[in-house]
Amino acid sequence: MKNYHQLLQDYREQFLQNLITVLKFPSVSADPAFNGDLKACADWLGDYLVRIGGKVSQIADYGKPVVYGEFLVDPKLPTVLLYGHYDVQPAGDRELWHQDPFDPLITEDRKLIARGSSDNKGPFMIFLAAIELMKKKSGLPLNIKIVLEGEEESSGKALFDFVEFQSERLKCDLVISTDAGGFLPGRPAITYGTRGIVYKQIDIYGPKQDLHSGTFGGEVQNPANALALILGSLFDANGKINIPGIYDQVRPIESAERQEFCALEFDEKKFCESLGIRETIHEPDFNVLEQIWCRPNLTINGLISGYTGEGAKTVLPAKASAKISMRLVPDQQPEEISALIDAHLQKLCPPGVKMQISTLGTAEPYLGPRSGPTDDAASVAIEKTFGYKPVHIREGGTLPILSHFRKMLTDNILIIGLARPDSAAHGPNEYFHLDDFDRGVEMTCVLFDLLADKLK
Amino acid sequence: MKNYHQLLQDYREQFLQNLITVLKFPSVSADPAFNGDLKACADWLGDYLVRIGGKVSQIADYGKPVVYGEFLVDPKLPTVLLYGHYDVQPAGDRELWHQDPFDPLITEDRKLIARGSSDNKGPFMIFLAAIELMKKKSGLPLNIKIVLEGEEESSGKALFDFVEFQSERLKCDLVISTDAGGFLPGRPAITYGTRGIVYKQIDIYGPKQDLHSGTFGGEVQNPANALALILGSLFDANGKINIPGIYDQVRPIESAERQEFCALEFDEKKFCESLGIRETIHEPDFNVLEQIWCRPNLTINGLISGYTGEGAKTVLPAKASAKISMRLVPDQQPEEISALIDAHLQKLCPPGVKMQISTLGTAEPYLGPRSGPTDDAASVAIEKTFGYKPVHIREGGTLPILSHFRKMLTDNILIIGLARPDSAAHGPNEYFHLDDFDRGVEMTCVLFDLLADKLK
Repeated sequence: MKNYHQLLQDYREQFLQNLITVLKFPSVSADPAFNGDLKACADWLGDYLVRIGGKVSQIADYGKPVVYGEFLVDPKLPTVLLYGHYDVQPAGDRELWHQDPFDPLITEDRKLIARGSSDNKGPFMIFLAAIELMKKKSGLPLNIKIVLEGEEESSGKALFDFVEFQSERLKCDLVISTDAGGFLPGRPAITYGTRGIVYKQIDIYGPKQDLHSGTFGGEVQNPANALALILGSLFDANGKINIPGIYDQVRPIESAERQEFCALEFDEKKFCESLGIRETIHEPDFNVLEQIWCRPNLTINGLISGYTGEGAKTVLPAKASAKISMRLVPDQQPEEISALIDAHLQKLCPPGVKMQISTLGTAEPYLGPRSGPTDDAASVAIEKTFGYKPVHIREGGTLPILSHFRKMLTDNILIIGLARPDSAAHGPNEYFHLDDFDRGVEMTCVLFDLLADKLK
Repeated sequence: MKNYHQLLQDYREQFLQNLITVLKFPSVSADPAFNGDLKACADWLGDYLVRIGGKVSQIADYGKPVVYGEFLVDPKLPTVLLYGHYDVQPAGDRELWHQDPFDPLITEDRKLIARGSSDNKGPFMIFLAAIELMKKKSGLPLNIKIVLEGEEESSGKALFDFVEFQSERLKCDLVISTDAGGFLPGRPAITYGTRGIVYKQIDIYGPKQDLHSGTFGGEVQNPANALALILGSLFDANGKINIPGIYDQVRPIESAERQEFCALEFDEKKFCESLGIRETIHEPDFNVLEQIWCRPNLTINGLISGYTGEGAKTVLPAKASAKISMRLVPDQQPEEISALIDAHLQKLCPPGVKMQISTLGTAEPYLGPRSGPTDDAASVAIEKTFGYKPVHIREGGTLPILSHFRKMLTDNILIIGLARPDSAAHGPNEYFHLDDFDRGVEMTCVLFDLLADKLK
């Protein structure tokens, strides 16, 4: 096995600068106001791939641009497809950030703080850096295809269409995704399962305009009261969901897997401390890891109605809205679950208001094998460069494209989680640790070498 | 009886200009950002009262300024205390207004649209105009004291303290308030009962910052879910409140009063149409008027949590907040009810989050007699000038100061509602009808003449 540690030294600073450049694009896909920034980010990534010798196209036929790059060495060698997304979550409340979320900051303890640093710009830039490094130093040992999408955080379908309509072009022996979190700091995880999602917006309409809550409160149904009635009945205090049929397709957890979960070093006390909570919650028959990885969950992502400023305003609001999402586990199907939710919500709507339900996104859950040649290669590469064997985990989040890759391209999927568990993906002060960035580049080079052999 | 119709003609335009001037002050009391505008509005009103011959002080010892004016003719004559408030509700969503809410607009059908036009600047400016008119034309037939407060819409206590500490100075035989709505357009109402209020803010705190709802949803209690669970259990779809003990002190409605309600021309279909709703709601044993006037109600005035922008953001919010208020009826006591609510909320809070409850305001309900000499005088004055006998109603809203006036000054209270039922107090495009403004000035002059005799 080659040692890439020394080879990396000449390029470390340049790779970091590339990442910082990418982080400066406010590529928020949920809000059309940032469409120009998404395009600029895609342009920069495409130019970079060309600069390091890739054949690149930008595909904007299906929605926000997909950056597609090819490094084809020899048709007889195996081909790996790398997946990443260059779009990011909205920054949220600016005041909760140490700095402008799109002006990256490096702390004394080598945290690189910026929106998208861990989800997913840091991790995929590791792979691009590894390609550049190998090309410069030793050559690529296999064919590499790269897709970087711009709609992951907004449940867009552009990449789905691209994969579907151009599956021949994307043919590969393995898909590698880095869009996942780790489990222990500085110790990468191999993720073999992710939850799916159904994301909805509920709008409740009452009187045609805000009313005086004294003069009308009691005779006019309040949309905010109606919304609270509806939402408050959907789950219990432990997170058990009260929608008929919702658990019917949930696959029971294998007892072997339950044992593996128990062997993981999960320090619940530390976990709670790191989040600033007193305790976790879970259904009585499941522990915390089982709950987050193997059980569906219904969460309110947003609520807005009436007066939310300082002090008291006695208003009966004309409208109340909620964003809710359900995370799905095998074998729940998004379409079925979506229909169950809608039917149940319609039943719950009280008199005197109108309800509108919009589905903002859906994705299937994913569950792969927990061992095999690809897994072996990843385990060796991780142990060699990080000094630890990887942990095998599922993930509570969603990688919507995985099931689609499996359907259209290959069953062989490897998900490597490099972001630390407290990296605050989607929250303020999201960070990626620069130790992991450097080791990640070395790990990827070793992995490519091993895969060139294993995938033959 | 003097006819003030002719006398008014010379001053009609000037009185209207005065009202427009007062409406231009954005005297929002809920938000400290408007404190300067409140002060400027109070200054203008004080100067105006001085200009028409009053002895005026501005009292700012207890909170936002109270404008106090005296027109003392003869200690042997009866004394009336006029009450109004110059503060207004926040304007709310600017886009829902035809124009800037603080740039008054007169429509072709003589509606004067501006925040505060009906609640309460239009109505109290009628009384000031009547004073000016009588002073110019015939002299005042009784002593008049005026208090205009700046904290009605924010449940402030400045006027309460002023009345308590200076009750000798405010001594009077009758309190008149115009801070009430009418029941039929162009037909003033005499309001003999109002509901009280307890207004609270509930803040639910979860993790120290927003989290990824996939990675953490299910193991970390979601403050928005917790808030929905709590709020959704507080009432049913008809508005019946589920808080133990909350109805214990509710006084049953007298059967004579129930009959009077039935005789009122309440067109429920038209009412629903005017508000843009399909149907009203009420508890099974009460009709709509009984529900709004004689039954407590718990309403959500505001909700905020997580992501409320466009599209989907998969966030588990760190915090969720609600503003709620309960309207009280005789003989519910605000302090008792407040304690019942707090105790119940504490019981409802699910594990994994912290709850903070703040009481933003309280006020007692009020119930006066439905007949008597004062009521006779008002009925005659209204019938003579508006062409209709007044309707006698209760009001779902709250006039917090009334119980305090009764305790500190006099049992004799007259509430005349001149704002039309669809005047959109607290909502966008609030209006006051200029026909009612003109007739209201005449009515007030006649009323003063009659009261000078009746209160002897």
